[in-house]
Amino acid sequence: MKLHTAAQDLLGHLQSLSRVASGRLANPTLSGVQIAADADGIELRATDLQVGLRIRLEGEVERPGTIVLPARLLLDITRQAPGPRLTLELRTEEQDVEVTAGSAVFHLRTLRGEDFPPLPEPAGADAVHVPADAFIATTAKVVRSAAKDDTRPLLACVLVRAEGDTLTMVATDSYRLSEKRTALETPLEGGFEANVPARVMQELERLVPASGAEHLVVSRGENQVLFTIGEHVLSSRLVDGTFPQYRSLIPETFEHELRVSTAELREVVSRVSLLAQKAAALRLAFSDGELVVSAQTQDVGEAREPLPVPFQGEPFEIGFNPEYLRDGLDAIDEDEVLLRLTSPIRPGLLQTTDEQQGFLYLIMPIRLNA
Amino acid sequence: MKLHTAAQDLLGHLQSLSRVASGRLANPTLSGVQIAADADGIELRATDLQVGLRIRLEGEVERPGTIVLPARLLLDITRQAPGPRLTLELRTEEQDVEVTAGSAVFHLRTLRGEDFPPLPEPAGADAVHVPADAFIATTAKVVRSAAKDDTRPLLACVLVRAEGDTLTMVATDSYRLSEKRTALETPLEGGFEANVPARVMQELERLVPASGAEHLVVSRGENQVLFTIGEHVLSSRLVDGTFPQYRSLIPETFEHELRVSTAELREVVSRVSLLAQKAAALRLAFSDGELVVSAQTQDVGEAREPLPVPFQGEPFEIGFNPEYLRDGLDAIDEDEVLLRLTSPIRPGLLQTTDEQQGFLYLIMPIRLNA
Repeated sequence: MKLHTAAQDLLGHLQSLSRVASGRLANPTLSGVQIAADADGIELRATDLQVGLRIRLEGEVERPGTIVLPARLLLDITRQAPGPRLTLELRTEEQDVEVTAGSAVFHLRTLRGEDFPPLPEPAGADAVHVPADAFIATTAKVVRSAAKDDTRPLLACVLVRAEGDTLTMVATDSYRLSEKRTALETPLEGGFEANVPARVMQELERLVPASGAEHLVVSRGENQVLFTIGEHVLSSRLVDGTFPQYRSLIPETFEHELRVSTAELREVVSRVSLLAQKAAALRLAFSDGELVVSAQTQDVGEAREPLPVPFQGEPFEIGFNPEYLRDGLDAIDEDEVLLRLTSPIRPGLLQTTDEQQGFLYLIMPIRLNA
Repeated sequence: MKLHTAAQDLLGHLQSLSRVASGRLANPTLSGVQIAADADGIELRATDLQVGLRIRLEGEVERPGTIVLPARLLLDITRQAPGPRLTLELRTEEQDVEVTAGSAVFHLRTLRGEDFPPLPEPAGADAVHVPADAFIATTAKVVRSAAKDDTRPLLACVLVRAEGDTLTMVATDSYRLSEKRTALETPLEGGFEANVPARVMQELERLVPASGAEHLVVSRGENQVLFTIGEHVLSSRLVDGTFPQYRSLIPETFEHELRVSTAELREVVSRVSLLAQKAAALRLAFSDGELVVSAQTQDVGEAREPLPVPFQGEPFEIGFNPEYLRDGLDAIDEDEVLLRLTSPIRPGLLQTTDEQQGFLYLIMPIRLNA
């Protein structure tokens, strides 16, 4: 194998590939980037078995072949390359690859190529074109509600459903739930539904804006889903099972509905949360025309701050996890948020006041000590 | 105690104090900031027993007194204060301090005031005024050569000597040594010499530029040294013992002296260092008109890059720790660096080509495998 390429192109691609390549697995080859050069051109590949990424690389192939090199090291070398061009050449006898950049010469031991698994080929016929802006904006609204750990894999997923003129995403870690429905300007041709790991959605949040692509081409297979973004193909194993039947969790009606300034509530919650340490709850006490947010941490102290709100009726108090409440408020772009509550033991709902925005955030209460 | 102050002033001071206050000590009071208010005004104090910082705070004292509050928490509250003013009031009965900012109210448990040690008073008569710019520029040249751990406390110090029209600083971790002599425009009145912990010098590197002060006022006592910078007084215990007699370590003459482009050498060293992993040495091979820098890491690979240099004589090779060589080159601001070497087992010297710059960097060689 021998090829020539621009250091700048290779650098950009290796930054994405290094995030996918895993250094922590039993198989050291998976910390590598596979470089496959043939008559069709050059492709770079990385995978951690769950997620795979393949990227076309511009360049001239002088001799075809496939090698695996340490991703991180090749990235560092490319970043410091003294000239605009790089040459990579496999030296079969030495079992290494000679990387030449200007007058600098590197000889890098290859990783075991036979341990690098094949990545799925992009499927064709049933692929769905989704506008990139809508996809990323929708992802940003929900992805923080997915569980951070893999104990229950479905909770670490985002449910992605594209159908007709609507893109819907849902995530829940069982303590809060986000749903965002985005109206598409042009109805989709075809549709799909998939449980996509949240970390794949986060990788798409980086890849898609950087690629400048206008569309993602999504192709759902039996066990995996492929996202084609310009020169990038990101593949992910799908998570088995059915996403929670979340719709039935969202109450139809609520006792109280109030519109509150999003910015004001966010600031008060953020300030008072400073005294909700050690898993203490944030206490929201509603009375006529007023909301008092307070928190108390044993041996440290307490905080309280009032906020005028259009509340009427029997006063009541409800407790929330401060971080979850902040996450919900952070996902509201509008000046006002619609706060819907029933009682201290029923979930609360944050919603955009404009139904068209199609965002809702359900949050479970925490039982308060009297 | 009751006082009023501007949130913005308090915020800036607490950022400095939080770096000094230590959260990791057996005495929890040391994670706090002491606030002392009396007829003379308000002073804020933090210490980790080795280093102390006191800062004057503008504000109105309504009732004098002294309290200790958690530094980090007070910083966070001040950062998020909703209005421009803050009020702090000790509530003796509740054993807490009420912090009021706009409509937000915080009650913070105080830390045990009796556990907060007294900080040294700024001495007067023998204080030396040192220009701030010169002090900080000199510090920056040498401080990275100090040892990172406290096993041998003197090696974790910077020797600071001010006398006549010269400010001299020296640091060495026994593998490399930096000396910087800075000529002062105006001769000093008085002088001092002190072994100052490197972390104190690093704190000064932050405090002094932020303060906008033109001078540091340095006052050396028996066991401690005080730096007064505008409203700030930073005190430090001195390290016992005599700084190494480093002058005798620096050879008078060298076999080889060559001028090399600082930027080119720095880049080559940085690139080739990528293959000097696992404590491998950087190999510098000199021959007529050429320097080849190379490195090799077992099971990973090797790198080499040539550089034209005005070398003449018997070829020879010398090994250096790549990080230490980079640190030395990073401290050279001039286009060319003077490289002085004798043999593979004698220390090398990096020097500014302009003697007036007064900087030298001695670096011990590493024995190379053949």
